[in-house]
Amino acid sequence: MQKTSENACFGGIQGVYTHPSDACGCDMTFGLFLPQEAQDGPVPLLWYLSGLTCTHENAMTKAGAQAWAAEQGLALVFPDTSPRGDGVADDEDYDLGQGAGFYVDATQDPWAPNYRMWSYITEELPALLGATFALDMDRQSITGHSMGGHGALTMAMNLPGRFRSVSAFSPICNPTGADWGRKQLTAYLGADETAWERHDASLMMRKAGFDGPMLIDIGSNDQFIDLLRPETLAAAIADRRQPASFRLQKGYDHSYFFVSTFMEDHVAFHADALWA
Amino acid sequence: MQKTSENACFGGIQGVYTHPSDACGCDMTFGLFLPQEAQDGPVPLLWYLSGLTCTHENAMTKAGAQAWAAEQGLALVFPDTSPRGDGVADDEDYDLGQGAGFYVDATQDPWAPNYRMWSYITEELPALLGATFALDMDRQSITGHSMGGHGALTMAMNLPGRFRSVSAFSPICNPTGADWGRKQLTAYLGADETAWERHDASLMMRKAGFDGPMLIDIGSNDQFIDLLRPETLAAAIADRRQPASFRLQKGYDHSYFFVSTFMEDHVAFHADALWA
Repeated sequence: MQKTSENACFGGIQGVYTHPSDACGCDMTFGLFLPQEAQDGPVPLLWYLSGLTCTHENAMTKAGAQAWAAEQGLALVFPDTSPRGDGVADDEDYDLGQGAGFYVDATQDPWAPNYRMWSYITEELPALLGATFALDMDRQSITGHSMGGHGALTMAMNLPGRFRSVSAFSPICNPTGADWGRKQLTAYLGADETAWERHDASLMMRKAGFDGPMLIDIGSNDQFIDLLRPETLAAAIADRRQPASFRLQKGYDHSYFFVSTFMEDHVAFHADALWA
Repeated sequence: MQKTSENACFGGIQGVYTHPSDACGCDMTFGLFLPQEAQDGPVPLLWYLSGLTCTHENAMTKAGAQAWAAEQGLALVFPDTSPRGDGVADDEDYDLGQGAGFYVDATQDPWAPNYRMWSYITEELPALLGATFALDMDRQSITGHSMGGHGALTMAMNLPGRFRSVSAFSPICNPTGADWGRKQLTAYLGADETAWERHDASLMMRKAGFDGPMLIDIGSNDQFIDLLRPETLAAAIADRRQPASFRLQKGYDHSYFFVSTFMEDHVAFHADALWA
């Protein structure tokens, strides 16, 4: 693993690291914020999964999350959103291929050899983080934005016991029923929609739910709200009686100005679960 | 004036606006954060001047300042760092020309027609802001980073009574004695160094000082510290008995990870002066 940069930040260290990934068959880069407390021993870890077109860098520089993580004594990891590189398949559209991994393990060509973000985020990267840094891997929670909110919700519901809490900012809530989803799930997983189910937060809510607290924020002026389909997830939460806070935030849109506004809430929400 | 964007942000509005500038002879773009309180009447204004290579956008997206400005009920303005456009003189070096206006009114060719950032920031933009938005122009303070810290300090000391307080993150403290300064002051103002004096914070501290509180933060691991020459300003502050806090922050560098870490302190510092 190579260190790209380390910057002092809110009393801790904001690092960027690159490593060869078996899951993705290419080099992968991630950001990791370690609070001051990590100098004395392992700290809990909050995952932040980013949205379409993002790299590890967007949330790391624009979400303002380190301020609150430092206050709560939490580490933050910012993974990339897809495999990358010259030898990695790509597409001209912004919402397929590099920058748009959708947090699945692709089974279809040309994506199958590299597009294994599910395995990367749920297996390879946690193993690497736990072996390398002062992280208490028994205390993990997960959040994300847009496509990353989809990833956070589906991982939390598919892996019971892994995450103490889950939250999302403007998540893609029902990809099997929206243009942000059907195209990508077809490309990565094929036309058989039974393989899609576990990658749809609304369907997973009806099937499994989440054994822990859940927090979801969506801006009432989100310019992509028709693609996110929050109404399907809200109905599934209500039908299941899932303990959750589902909030429409008046006037906010899909941008990082929205994410940063509610980041303090989300980090405090996860800290409550992680320190319980 | 044209509105480029407005995003809900921490209960207020983060806007971006473009207008034709008489001072600079081109279109200029700035960011303006208005807290919720601006819906009910004029609010105090904190200026943030950015550093080399930056536009209006860097601090607006990476400094995390809106969180604290919202808490304190302050507006924030993020001006650009130079004139821009095809008809505007430029240089191949990152530290001269577009993105590197150095907050002076150039008198030398080819810079003189457009490079009038002093007049733009101290006259034209405040007049426009005061006439257009709910801002209490009797309550202004100023801060900045690197070249912008230089701008903030020199404007505050040259314009007694304008700003209630001044602060800076890793400012260029002594441009007449450093490679970040001599080259640009020569290009913009000519070889006669008497014209440079008022654009040097260390010299202005010895000549005039500042009638109000001053806060300066510099990282002890700042990779550009030899170009900033903080020792000259520290000595001038001490010699003058200027009321000021001059802090070397252990382990921090020149990045926005440093700026964002101490932004809460700086906004609270200015709020104390602005609401007094």
